[in-house]
Amino acid sequence: VTVVCLPSEEAVHEVGPLPEAVRTVIWDGSRRTPPGVEFLVPEYPGGAKPDLSGMPELKVVQLLSAGVEGWPELVPDGVTLCNGRGVHGGSTAELAVLGLLAVLRRLPHYLRQQEQGVWEPGVGEGLDGKRVLLLGAGDIGEHLRAAVEVFGAEVTTVARRARSGVRTMDELPSLLPSADVVVLALPSTPSTNGLVDAAFLAALPDGAVLVNIARGRLVDTDALVAELQSRRLRAFLDVFDQEPLPEGHPLWTAPNVILTPHVGGGTQGWQRRGYRLVREQVRRFVAGEQLVNVVSEGY
Amino acid sequence: VTVVCLPSEEAVHEVGPLPEAVRTVIWDGSRRTPPGVEFLVPEYPGGAKPDLSGMPELKVVQLLSAGVEGWPELVPDGVTLCNGRGVHGGSTAELAVLGLLAVLRRLPHYLRQQEQGVWEPGVGEGLDGKRVLLLGAGDIGEHLRAAVEVFGAEVTTVARRARSGVRTMDELPSLLPSADVVVLALPSTPSTNGLVDAAFLAALPDGAVLVNIARGRLVDTDALVAELQSRRLRAFLDVFDQEPLPEGHPLWTAPNVILTPHVGGGTQGWQRRGYRLVREQVRRFVAGEQLVNVVSEGY
Repeated sequence: VTVVCLPSEEAVHEVGPLPEAVRTVIWDGSRRTPPGVEFLVPEYPGGAKPDLSGMPELKVVQLLSAGVEGWPELVPDGVTLCNGRGVHGGSTAELAVLGLLAVLRRLPHYLRQQEQGVWEPGVGEGLDGKRVLLLGAGDIGEHLRAAVEVFGAEVTTVARRARSGVRTMDELPSLLPSADVVVLALPSTPSTNGLVDAAFLAALPDGAVLVNIARGRLVDTDALVAELQSRRLRAFLDVFDQEPLPEGHPLWTAPNVILTPHVGGGTQGWQRRGYRLVREQVRRFVAGEQLVNVVSEGY
Repeated sequence: VTVVCLPSEEAVHEVGPLPEAVRTVIWDGSRRTPPGVEFLVPEYPGGAKPDLSGMPELKVVQLLSAGVEGWPELVPDGVTLCNGRGVHGGSTAELAVLGLLAVLRRLPHYLRQQEQGVWEPGVGEGLDGKRVLLLGAGDIGEHLRAAVEVFGAEVTTVARRARSGVRTMDELPSLLPSADVVVLALPSTPSTNGLVDAAFLAALPDGAVLVNIARGRLVDTDALVAELQSRRLRAFLDVFDQEPLPEGHPLWTAPNVILTPHVGGGTQGWQRRGYRLVREQVRRFVAGEQLVNVVSEGY
């Protein structure tokens, strides 16, 4: 019998029928470790990371998030770590498109006019012909690219690994000066944190839009605040290097920026997609098949 | 020599080089009619319609708008009327996607939180799995369908003419009760005006979103206001049966609705697309080829 550990009754319900040789236990990470667990699905969205030292039989940690920060260090040798690629990517890209279009077409301006009962149509900007520099070729990036291309944007994808149709990070200096929009859809790693610093921002043309729906630590916030306050750049931000964004933080009152409180992945329906992934992964694990979404191979 | 009449110096510049046998004149509709005009491009966006009776040699009226209201009656026998299909469709669909996503993901709510410096993430709705009923299979509809399908929406297209993959208007009663979103992308005609009446709206499920980026006359505004005020339905509206929307109109203060002042087509870049179409149509006309975007054949 394979013991699969899920975070809640709701998760058990959503996962639905599992192979016969599986026994399910529920653990939210806070209480005594259940015995014999081989396949663990931690709580999502998670708070403090659980202590895995009491799970000597653990083989797989299956996250429901795309980001894995803190997990590779936590997962013992011999344990495979898988992420939730595909669960939130569409939803996060959707928020990026919403935020980008809201900046370009000045939705906050029109919402204020609506509150005041004022009718003053203006000429907005559309995506047609806009040069979009997309940093990240994962699930979020693929959705975002497809959506903005429908409206005529010209997308250049930049990723950490060279591959067909994708530019690499060392080409950024030549790409930034002609980018109308930069979308950050990269994981936060030691090599990507702080990537968007003062020099990166200074290389962008006037009026360029920075969209960050990935991780706040990718951006030097002070440098971005300076570019917003001078009204040279514009931004849509769903993530921040400190979350919640502290009271009185200059971003709250900066011009040219739309903020949302890290709601990119949090739409109704993620459970359905997330636990469909879990069901499939458990099936593969029990059948001895190769897992998908593997971040680090352990066994 | 073929005389082509354009609305402005800017239009002449944007159209660029035309065939040798073409002479260009400029007329904004307000002054004396220039002589010998065979191909007319009226001003866009136009105000009062021009008097065409002083153009006995007229063969083609090429509009820069998709909608043709008022023109078929105005264009004399023997004159072909063409519209601007393709010029504004992407831009209009883009606004529809922005407005729909802003409603589903509650952007106005988060913008108020931003103004107040409040961080309160909530669970929003995404397009994934949403059943979108799209009325209209033209240029706007095609762009909208492609964009929302990227995010997992299930689109059913309804049009006036039966064709493959498209449902017809008489099927609406069976389609409305399962629509999470209805997008109006139809022209205003005697048969479509008032289509969205109290019975149409009553057939929609609770919480459904009406998106109108087409024409205000398609909707019975009083019936829609009643559904918004009871908070049963939600809406994004860019067009109204009276424009500008009058001061004190109940839509200004209705709940559950986002309004913009008819800015769907008005993005930077329409000139490039519009006058590219004009250049191609003039080329076809001079070469004796079939025109595109023909609304009514005249010669």
